[in-house]
Amino acid sequence: MRDFSSSHEWLSMNTATVRKQWQLPQIIDECARRGIRAISPWRDQVAAAGLEATQRQLKAHGMGLSGYCRGGFYPAADKAGLAAALDDNRRAIDEAKMLDAPCVVLVVGALPGALQGKPAYTDIARARNEVRDGIAASLDYAREVGMPLAIEPLHPMQAAERACVNTLEHALDLCDELDPGQTGMLGVAMDVYHCWWDPKLEQQIARAGDAKKSRLLAFHVCDWLTPTRDLLNDRGMMGDGVVELRKIRGWVEQTGFAGFAEVEIFSELDWWQRPGAEVLDTCIERHKSAV
Amino acid sequence: MRDFSSSHEWLSMNTATVRKQWQLPQIIDECARRGIRAISPWRDQVAAAGLEATQRQLKAHGMGLSGYCRGGFYPAADKAGLAAALDDNRRAIDEAKMLDAPCVVLVVGALPGALQGKPAYTDIARARNEVRDGIAASLDYAREVGMPLAIEPLHPMQAAERACVNTLEHALDLCDELDPGQTGMLGVAMDVYHCWWDPKLEQQIARAGDAKKSRLLAFHVCDWLTPTRDLLNDRGMMGDGVVELRKIRGWVEQTGFAGFAEVEIFSELDWWQRPGAEVLDTCIERHKSAV
Repeated sequence: MRDFSSSHEWLSMNTATVRKQWQLPQIIDECARRGIRAISPWRDQVAAAGLEATQRQLKAHGMGLSGYCRGGFYPAADKAGLAAALDDNRRAIDEAKMLDAPCVVLVVGALPGALQGKPAYTDIARARNEVRDGIAASLDYAREVGMPLAIEPLHPMQAAERACVNTLEHALDLCDELDPGQTGMLGVAMDVYHCWWDPKLEQQIARAGDAKKSRLLAFHVCDWLTPTRDLLNDRGMMGDGVVELRKIRGWVEQTGFAGFAEVEIFSELDWWQRPGAEVLDTCIERHKSAV
Repeated sequence: MRDFSSSHEWLSMNTATVRKQWQLPQIIDECARRGIRAISPWRDQVAAAGLEATQRQLKAHGMGLSGYCRGGFYPAADKAGLAAALDDNRRAIDEAKMLDAPCVVLVVGALPGALQGKPAYTDIARARNEVRDGIAASLDYAREVGMPLAIEPLHPMQAAERACVNTLEHALDLCDELDPGQTGMLGVAMDVYHCWWDPKLEQQIARAGDAKKSRLLAFHVCDWLTPTRDLLNDRGMMGDGVVELRKIRGWVEQTGFAGFAEVEIFSELDWWQRPGAEVLDTCIERHKSAV
């Protein structure tokens, strides 16, 4: 297992962590100034900054990506919606390619309309079928372009609105179904926030690694607070909660994973209220002491 | 599948649903007046009303129980805590026996102290071991007394504070380990609120039924709201959310289950604010139209 205690060379910042404080160009500069070698930006931030400008800025800093956020949201109320989702995912894949991302992270979607409080239907099996078919279609394009897709299982508390794939096991079942050849083009993004509670986590992480090309394309960290006051935006800083970060990273590295630990903290009540510099500095410190 | 549309003979009220409005004696009277044949009371409510008085009142109304809430909370910071939990579970079993309950529902507990925001440890595997050992000890006593224990898997969002058994599969694995003879003395309480999202739900419900004596000892209903505003107390009335109640009840009844659909709604923001009579009347109506 790698020793993170004296270096943050394997720290990546998911840019949502400081999205309320800074626009993307400043995030990139502030990360570069601190020796952070990678980020995982969100599409809306990239769109606001400009795709080519972002590409140039990253190149100027020699900064890489640990992922691109995000594709997915496949289920829809009608055929037009399903087709629009596929188009949007092609654009996400193209953007990721432009930015030389290692993968597009897929938040697969769930009951269409539920995020707006008006689900168009409640048949979660239908949503899961639409997700499977959507990923299959995106995967065809992703293979052409050479851009791996990483299914991110979200916490079951987000099953209605954001992702109806909620366990690593389910995500890996999808990988096995859609990419039986284990080509490396379809895998998972494993965020400890979503998966820490799962009694099958160790087993399924090992399964992800036990492939011709590992399915484990991204590893996200933050922490689970007690109490958690909000179902979406109350994630904790590493070390402030109950997630056994080092134990889980050990399982992840047992598979041969040697990539970034990407910090993704949505925190309306705490970290989004603090100065961005304090957030980044704390992430670096906790990367060393807690991850 | 049973037709609930014109009768509520298989409706049971979990008494937490109107706990903010009424004390237990009034809950029992109000249920009896509406032809509700069963309740599932909480220990603190029974203690407040008196165990023997409750027993007499139930008998006078010819009212039964669909479960007794609750045992569990096994993990503890030290040996004294573990021993105290076992004693408390013996008392719960004795009370359940006095009230002629069909089972004691076990909310098994999780990281000790997490409910108070100060987890004594974060090793969830340790908590799970303590849960297994605790259930094993309670089961010995439960067998003596003849009182089945029903493990209730809680939603993964409650894994840190309330229950580190979070899927039906995990609960059934425990049953298989501790009661390989499928004696009927150890099973599960399946609440749609906790389990609706699980892609293996249909399969695991079938597994619960596929035993010498069915593992499915209790069936709880309510609904999952979009958005859900609180991790504990924002459950919905049946029909107001996205849970496919009738589909899931179909799976449950496929196993031969012919017991009560127990309504358990914790709702700080809505149903606990309404008159108790309105809540009970709505439960009856939705039992017919949505369950």
